[in-house]
Order: sequence, then C-alpha cells, then structure tokens
Amino acid sequence: MATDQRLTPQSKDFAAWYTELVQLAGLADYSPVRGCMVIRPYGYAVWELMQAALDDMFKSTGHQNAYFPLFLPQSALDREAEHVEGFAPQTAVVTRAGGETLEEPLVVRPTSEAIIWPVVANWIQSYRDLPILLNQWANVVRWELRTRPFLRTTEFLWQEGHTAHATAEEAQEEARRMLGVYREFMEEWMAMPVVTGEKTPSERFAGAERTFSCEALMRDNRALQAGTSHYLGQNFARAFEVQFQTEAGRHEYVWSTSWGVSTRLIGGLIMTHGDDEGLVLPPRLAPHQVVIVPIWKSEEQRRTVLDKARELRAALSGRVRIHVDDRENMTPGAKFFEWERKGVPLRIEIGPRDVAGSQVVLVRRLKGEADRKRPIDEAEAVAVLPELLTGLQAEMRAAAAARREENSVRADSDFEGFRSRMAGLGGFVYAGWCGREACEQKVKDETKATIRVIPDQEFRSQEPPERCLCCGRAPAEEVLWAKAY
Amino acid sequence: MATDQRLTPQSKDFAAWYTELVQLAGLADYSPVRGCMVIRPYGYAVWELMQAALDDMFKSTGHQNAYFPLFLPQSALDREAEHVEGFAPQTAVVTRAGGETLEEPLVVRPTSEAIIWPVVANWIQSYRDLPILLNQWANVVRWELRTRPFLRTTEFLWQEGHTAHATAEEAQEEARRMLGVYREFMEEWMAMPVVTGEKTPSERFAGAERTFSCEALMRDNRALQAGTSHYLGQNFARAFEVQFQTEAGRHEYVWSTSWGVSTRLIGGLIMTHGDDEGLVLPPRLAPHQVVIVPIWKSEEQRRTVLDKARELRAALSGRVRIHVDDRENMTPGAKFFEWERKGVPLRIEIGPRDVAGSQVVLVRRLKGEADRKRPIDEAEAVAVLPELLTGLQAEMRAAAAARREENSVRADSDFEGFRSRMAGLGGFVYAGWCGREACEQKVKDETKATIRVIPDQEFRSQEPPERCLCCGRAPAEEVLWAKAY
Repeated sequence: MATDQRLTPQSKDFAAWYTELVQLAGLADYSPVRGCMVIRPYGYAVWELMQAALDDMFKSTGHQNAYFPLFLPQSALDREAEHVEGFAPQTAVVTRAGGETLEEPLVVRPTSEAIIWPVVANWIQSYRDLPILLNQWANVVRWELRTRPFLRTTEFLWQEGHTAHATAEEAQEEARRMLGVYREFMEEWMAMPVVTGEKTPSERFAGAERTFSCEALMRDNRALQAGTSHYLGQNFARAFEVQFQTEAGRHEYVWSTSWGVSTRLIGGLIMTHGDDEGLVLPPRLAPHQVVIVPIWKSEEQRRTVLDKARELRAALSGRVRIHVDDRENMTPGAKFFEWERKGVPLRIEIGPRDVAGSQVVLVRRLKGEADRKRPIDEAEAVAVLPELLTGLQAEMRAAAAARREENSVRADSDFEGFRSRMAGLGGFVYAGWCGREACEQKVKDETKATIRVIPDQEFRSQEPPERCLCCGRAPAEEVLWAKAY
Repeated sequence: MATDQRLTPQSKDFAAWYTELVQLAGLADYSPVRGCMVIRPYGYAVWELMQAALDDMFKSTGHQNAYFPLFLPQSALDREAEHVEGFAPQTAVVTRAGGETLEEPLVVRPTSEAIIWPVVANWIQSYRDLPILLNQWANVVRWELRTRPFLRTTEFLWQEGHTAHATAEEAQEEARRMLGVYREFMEEWMAMPVVTGEKTPSERFAGAERTFSCEALMRDNRALQAGTSHYLGQNFARAFEVQFQTEAGRHEYVWSTSWGVSTRLIGGLIMTHGDDEGLVLPPRLAPHQVVIVPIWKSEEQRRTVLDKARELRAALSGRVRIHVDDRENMTPGAKFFEWERKGVPLRIEIGPRDVAGSQVVLVRRLKGEADRKRPIDEAEAVAVLPELLTGLQAEMRAAAAARREENSVRADSDFEGFRSRMAGLGGFVYAGWCGREACEQKVKDETKATIRVIPDQEFRSQEPPERCLCCGRAPAEEVLWAKAY
C-alpha cells in the first residue's frame, strides 16, 4: 500500500476515513481469520501506554492481577440464565481437542464470570476474606457479524475486573468507583470527555442488576460506549455458590461486580482527535511525543544535524518520549507526512542553518493555529518541551469537550425535530423518557438512536424535560439519546 | 485448605512437595477445565516481574510488541509440513461459532508462525523493510495428557518472538542473541544457572532448522528446558510466501527465527530454590522483597510498632519493594510461617522493645546460616537493606550453580554406570554420542534420559569423551544427558 496515499476526508466518508487511517497509520491490519485483526507495533505501543496507566490506577485502588483459563465448560456458562442467554449466540466453541471429540464442549471466554466465580468460591470462607478485588488482562472472543478494527472485532484484548463484597452497598460503591477510574483515564489520558450514567434495563450486561457506562461523542457525532461497570448483585454468587460466613456466623452469598475496557478505546482515541491528515495523539498516550527530523543534503551536513538531533534527544530523555528519525533514502517531506499521519504531537526539524543559529523549528500536530510552525531557541526547546506537551494535552481535551457541547442539544419532546436531527447531524440529545421499553424500542426502530445512559446528576439539564420524547406522557426521566457504534 | 499445613518434604516426594507448594504459597489453583490452571495474584505478580524484565531486554535489542489473532485457519497450519505434523495432535479446534458450524475449523494457536507470516508477508517489500523484529505476549493452547501447574498446562502464557532477516547468517545470529538474552535473564534475574547449546534433530521445534535451548537442573536432579530459540531457515518463508527484493533487485525468501519462554519459568524458579518450608524467591523477582511483621500485645503497643513499621517502609520505598503486614486476628507466628512459605527474601520483626532500642530484628529466608536472624540498628537497616538484597541474589545464584556442579558428572562411555545413575541420583551427565538417532532413542528407552543439548563450547569437558555412551563407537560428540520435565 502506498504510504503517501491521502485519506478520504472525514466530511466525505467518515467510515472510509477511519478504516484507511487504521491501516495507513500502522495501527492494525486485517488477518486471514474473519473478524480478527492484527494489532501492529504502533497500535500496540498505544495499547501498552493505556495498559500501564490503567494498571497503575487499578493497583492503587487495591486490585490485584490474576489469570483465569481461556475456556469455560459449556455447563458453567449455562448456570446463570440471563448470562447464557446474552452470550450464547456469540460464542466460539471448541468441540475437538488432542485429536478427539470432547465430551463437553469448551466455550472460548466471551467474558470470565463463569470461570472466575466457581474457582474463587473456594478462596472465600469468611467475611475476613472479603473484599476480593481481582483484575485480568486477557483476550476474549465474541462472534460478531459486522466487524471493524478496534471498534468491534471477534477477538479483542481487554481487562476485566471482578470483585466480591460482603454487602450490596459496598459492591455498588465499587462499581461506581471503577466507573470513576475509567472516566478519569478517558479524560486525563485520552483527552476524551465522557458522560457517565446508568444503562436502561434493555441495555444492561447479561446477568447484571445495574450497568454503568462512560459514553463519548465521536467526530461523526455518533456515541461510543467506551467502558462499562456492572453491579451484579448476588446473581453470579447464587449461580456459582459463592458464599461467606458473616461476622455473626450466618452464611450469605457475596455481592459482586465486573467492569471492563478494551482495545475499543483505541478506536475512541482515533475518532475523538483524528483529522484528515491522520491520527492526532494526546501526548500522554503517544509512543513518540516528539520526533526529530534532521534535514541534510551533504554527508557533512548529515553528521552535523544528526549530532545535534542526538544531543537534543539526550538532553530530553527521561522527561519526554523522543525519537530521532535518522532513516536514509527518505526525504524530510515524506517523514513529515508519515509522522503527521501517525499523530505525533510535536515535530522538531533541524537543518544545517538551524544548527548554525542554535535554533530548531518546532511544529505542532494540532491544526488551526497561526503559529503551528515556529523557530525556537535550542536551549529554550529543551526547557519548555515538557510543559508544551502538558499544554497540548489540556488543549486537546478542551477542544474535544467544546466539540461535544456544540453537538449536544437539550430538547423537550419534539420527536419530529429529534427524528430529523438523527437523520442528519446526529450528536447527543438529552430528552425525556417515560420509562417504557416500548418507547425506547420505537425510537430506536424509527431513528436508530438508543438511550446511551440515564445521565448522572452533573450532566442533567437545569430544566429537566417533563414529557417523554416518544409518547409525550409525563412524568419523564431525562436520558441521553444518540446513534452509537 | 489449612494454611498451616506442612509441605511433604522434598526428600520424601518431590512431586508432592511441588504441587502442595504451588497451592499453599498461593501461586496457582486448579480450574474446572482439564489441564488449565488459574494463576493466583501472588503467582501472577511474579510473572509480571518476569515480563517487565524480559520486555525491557527485548525492546533494548530492537524488538517491538504486536498482537496476532488467537485463531489459525486449519489450512494455514497445514502449509508447513513438519510444523503441522508436530502440532496437529495437540490442537484444540473451534468448529462452531455464532451458533453455526464453521466452514473451515479454526485452530486455537499452539504457536503463531502460521498466522504471523501470512500477514507480515504484506509488510515486506524490499531489503529496506528488514529485519522485522516482533514479539508477542499471549496465551497458547497445546492439548496435553499429563499436566502440572506451570510446568505443563493445556493453556499457558508466554512470549513468542518472530523475526525475519535478509540473510541466513543474520537470522542465526538473532537466534543466538535471543538465547543469550534468555540465559542472562535466567541467571541474573532468576538466579538459575543454565547450560546452553543446540538440540539434536529429534528434539527440534517442528519446522526449525536449528533449535537452541537453555537447560537448568532442578533440585530433584531433573532437567528443565527453560527457553528455546529457533533458526527456521526459509521453511516458513517458503510455506507462506514471505519474499523481499534484494539490493540487487532479485526476489528472495526471508530467513526467520522464533523464540519463546513461558509461565513454565515459574516452575523453574520454584524447583531451583524452594525448600521444605516453601518458596524461596530471588530478590529481583520477589513481589515483596521485605515484609515487616509488627508485634504487639496491647492497643498502645500496636500503634507504636505500626508507626515504626510505616516509617521504615517510607524510608525504604522506591529502593525496596516492602510490605507491612498489619493484619489483625493473626499471630506474628502465623505471619512468619506464611511469608516463609511465600519465599519473601527478608523479614523484619518489630516489637515494642525493638522500638525502644531503635532496632529491628532481621530474618533471612535462606536457610543454613548461623546468623539467619539478628538484631540490627534501625538506621543501619535502612542503609544496608538494598545491598543485602543484592547480596542474597548473588548468594542464591552461587548456591544454585554449586548444586548443579555437584550433580553434574563427566563420563566417558560407561553405560552401566550411567544407567544406575539415571535410576538413582540423576543429574547432568556429559557423555559421548555417535550422532545416530538409534543410540539416542535406545538410551531414552532404557533410562528415560534424553540429550538435553549439544552443549556450547564453554560447557564442554577439557578432555572430551571419545566414544558413544551407548554403542561405544568413535568418534563421538560430547552431549548433555539428563532426565527432564
């Protein structure tokens, strides 16, 4: 594939822009297995930065990593009725192994509740063994008909937290706490603002009592469910006999939670910040935060500018992830193009005249500023680069938040207006809902919009809607509608 | 399971000791899926330390991480004849997915050559795209009849490196380089000395031209194949059409390698250093390098000793992984027992009298020294703990090396002596081999010993054996024999 190929503009065909970017920025590739993608080194480096940040946050909230088997016995999956109903149609099943037909088929995990709880049940005797706070980094498989790299793939990488508690309150607090951790990660690291809230019953995780979600608005005005956290009540404890002895000596079922984010976040990152030139990475998740492109014509110049580039890298190493692109057989222009496509936040160009003048040329990846490209004194560059990156991170977050606000409307009960908005612009619409599944379904059938969440207090309108968007009945609760990935 | 249960002594039943230790030290647990284990948080924490060290070493030798699909189309596996012959009997196969029977069954990867090369073939046009230096952290599945936690499980976690090069020489150098990385990791981090060398043709990886291995000697005098590195020649390049254009403009197949280590290393760690009390961890791979056990009787004492414990932890944090065991409802003796079983290198006991005297009691996990337990001035403890840990690491490595040497013999061609050694003591035996597969097989059939490697020069005898251990023929090559896991 030609690396100088231009992307289809977002405004022309957002889906084409996305799939081209994923390939041309070296994030992922297709594989010979339907619906399974290959995460290429550059995409995987982004995932490693995400993992490191999340893993720190999980550990500092008291969670420990563990690893449970890839396979679930079919009978284990069957033990929680709603859970199996939700996941069975999507499972991949091993029926032959070691040259023989298995007596009991093994399901490749779509999620791990059904293998974790039968095992962890043996680790719990009394209230003193609680809470159990586990996390697992793993691959899971859900057989999907329509797939798209990162957003929806048959196999994906994720983390799944699984916790058990002595009381319902504590489990609910945990589910909420981890939603907060996700939100913090998405906002502080991904520069991707989210609306948090609770899912309606029809959108809950199969087997959960309550599902909480972080919803982000992509640049095409469609929502992305970016992370979910579930309060499972005692459903799985009952199904898998997970009991503990209370301080008073009674035997009770534990209260559990699960929560997960996946490589889907990379899709969210692309569609929150990317532009027609390619990816735009927030500095905290950029494998290279700064790339130095040395410019030379003669061999002597090459040595001079490369020495300077390496000197600069040495001066900044440990504070900034910095890379010197010293490839030969490639023009500086081709390098600029490639690193812009790959979303590197800052580029430094160094030519022979810059070396002579003790300066470098600094270029921001973010578009739309008059001084996107400017010369800067070399010593100053060393001093200010870290804070420039911090500033860029904040700027990207603010820009994403402003875009979301511009594309959020707070409507009362004008279903026609809603219908035409969903057929056109899209975006987030806060509107009333009477609580009936029939209305939820009707809106979905007619507009493809779904209730993303019943938003948390801070996201609600000052004057909440009084009537249902669909049936016009009062009273109504304020919910967030959008077409979603 | 009672946590104060004593382990079966190694001398009585080494296999029982091992399986009890794995459970009672909280490293792993059984699962409802045959042959699949659960890695518990403490075991996983050891694996995370191993991963971090290895990942750094891979990256500093120029490798990048990526991720390829869990599934291989059956037809892809079939393309390399020796490869499929080696792995087909061990595969787990998905035949149903999404509620339907698949047209082509999908094999759960036993190793990833057959999914990596068809994809990476598209990333390579010319010699400028080489070398390709990839690594993947993943789970793999090999259907095993007899399994043991960490040592041989149906599913295991590993890393697999896959590289492609423009010349055979470069690929062989790479295979050797990574064998060296493994050896360095095993010796410097695991404190586990290894013999390196090349496998005989019958013991090669299925599809490889040459297989190199690190072989360690466990405390029961059986060998453990701890890591292997393969030079694959052009076998996989031919099977998957991985070509490049040379500088001269010709089209050639690439030369490839693969190399891997797995959670099996945790088994090696246990059986290299563990004793009848439990695990003994080398400091560099200990999740807690130091555990402080505060000792109190009254509430006032509790506050005093806990304050001191936390002060000490704060003084050492960042330099030492240190944990304060402040659990109530548990005697100090029970805590000592648990942390000894879990192999924590150093324990610090602090009681009220220690606080008054500005001292602590320092206890080494390693047995066999007169001053295993000694009082030490508090300020001195802060100053010397990091170097004490460094010393312990070296001491463990030296002890393991001495044990291996005591249990290595260099024999010429006394097959009767060899036979009785393998029926009794076991250990490493360096002896001659004529190069015939029949002799290799006969020794195996009669003694269960196999040729672990044709050892590298530095391990060979000053006076190399002249005749084959089995048939007595000359000339013979010196090889390393042992019974192995």
